[in-house]
Amino acid sequence: MKVVERIKEPIYEEMELFEKKFSKSMSSHISLLNRITHFIVNRKGKQMRPMFVFLVAKMMGNGKLNERSFRGAAVIELIHTATLVHDDVVDDSNERRGFFSINALWKNKIAVLVGDYLLSKGLLLSIENEDFDLLKIISIAVREMSQGELLQIEKARNLDITEDIYYDIIRQKTATLLAACCAMGAKSVFASKEEVEKMYSFGELLGMAFQIKDDLLDYSTNLKTGKPQFQDLKEGKITYPFFYAYKNANNKQKEILINSLGNKKVQTLKILELIEKLNGIKKTEELAKQFYKK
Amino acid sequence: MKVVERIKEPIYEEMELFEKKFSKSMSSHISLLNRITHFIVNRKGKQMRPMFVFLVAKMMGNGKLNERSFRGAAVIELIHTATLVHDDVVDDSNERRGFFSINALWKNKIAVLVGDYLLSKGLLLSIENEDFDLLKIISIAVREMSQGELLQIEKARNLDITEDIYYDIIRQKTATLLAACCAMGAKSVFASKEEVEKMYSFGELLGMAFQIKDDLLDYSTNLKTGKPQFQDLKEGKITYPFFYAYKNANNKQKEILINSLGNKKVQTLKILELIEKLNGIKKTEELAKQFYKK
Repeated sequence: MKVVERIKEPIYEEMELFEKKFSKSMSSHISLLNRITHFIVNRKGKQMRPMFVFLVAKMMGNGKLNERSFRGAAVIELIHTATLVHDDVVDDSNERRGFFSINALWKNKIAVLVGDYLLSKGLLLSIENEDFDLLKIISIAVREMSQGELLQIEKARNLDITEDIYYDIIRQKTATLLAACCAMGAKSVFASKEEVEKMYSFGELLGMAFQIKDDLLDYSTNLKTGKPQFQDLKEGKITYPFFYAYKNANNKQKEILINSLGNKKVQTLKILELIEKLNGIKKTEELAKQFYKK
Repeated sequence: MKVVERIKEPIYEEMELFEKKFSKSMSSHISLLNRITHFIVNRKGKQMRPMFVFLVAKMMGNGKLNERSFRGAAVIELIHTATLVHDDVVDDSNERRGFFSINALWKNKIAVLVGDYLLSKGLLLSIENEDFDLLKIISIAVREMSQGELLQIEKARNLDITEDIYYDIIRQKTATLLAACCAMGAKSVFASKEEVEKMYSFGELLGMAFQIKDDLLDYSTNLKTGKPQFQDLKEGKITYPFFYAYKNANNKQKEILINSLGNKKVQTLKILELIEKLNGIKKTEELAKQFYKK
């Protein structure tokens, strides 16, 4: 059994029910919108975010979920979907999860409006049910994520970043959303403030471990992941493998590394060899393990 | 004195104070973000939305505003600014209010992130101060606006739209936001449910009159407005002047009109002449007046 299946097992029924509720939460009287949201439901991914909301809610609520847990998961998924739809416009992507992107099928203008619509539906789902505490959790996550990405852009091509800044970036960019899911799960079943905070930290550490692993995959030659390789390097993003290798490099190696950054025609295997030689891969693996342990 | 100046007069001090609060509401610890939001504050427009919040709040609150009125105006302006920043990305615009657009100066990716950040700051300003009633007003407006634009796109190039659909489109697309501002002003000073609804309807009628006037300007040869002319026609958007003329046209004229729709190289003066001949301009002027009267 795959990892995701194993995680899903204790909340199988909840995930089934969630799909129905989630699909309903997007409905509109505009037929164009219904066609698009129907398409979005069909190309659904692993739904990691709702999963973590339910797992934590079930654990903290003595095996029982409530309607708040479902609404919390739906709000996170609605807002997350809205940002994915917008991201594809920005990156001019034609593909998402093996399907065409919304912008590829319906053009940019429509994709942005669909994103705005999903976002407002998420907000209203919380507001109309007075789940203000849950809405606060996700709003903070949106703020942190946009700040994290902007910090990464600000620091891109800037080689004097410190280990702390690297942690800040991955914390804000990725770990925040998983942290919000876990906190949301706890909050939805009225866990205490301390328990909610504990779950937030747990989600954050797990999210950081995920992101480090993801950064590592980008430097891997394993083609099973299905993701384009060396994307970070080509886009000039400094992640841990590069960061560590650079710190360890002599002047000549530093020059090679700098020239590879943001270079779309970079000789990837040569750079990988150099980063491996400078312990960038090994150290990143260790770091990921460290976060999982925590 | 210009109309805007005259409207602003009774709330001059409030608008001054608002600017300071608004600017502060966008601050971040990321320096890139602060540079961009500073730029946004400097290129500010007429600030019609805060103006209407304050005018209504002052009127309904016996001449007094409160902090809720300021926060309500800031939330509307933050969310509105976020959508403008995103719109410029979608339309690939290089300009906004005579300044460069955010995407022109900082690229698409950054512009989208800045939009997300402004949005989350707006949400948190409401949530942290427990202005949930105000947040609901603006969330409904966002939903209605995105649905209105999508309805317009769905009906674009569809010549059998009815007068009611035309009203629906301009109501959702534009009037909703002004209606939300007026309702927000009333709600912020704790006006009764009936008063809030009355103010909502007032803003809606005013917004519809504005939009009809705007649709008319697009068919005008007057260059004072500074807006690109015949944009709606070139983009294939059916607005009232075209709509009315088409209903009145004979088969040959209908063919000419259809061929002009969405045609970037259309002979604008010839089409304008035809629309004028078919009473499209005169009828639209009458319609705008009708809404102002209401």
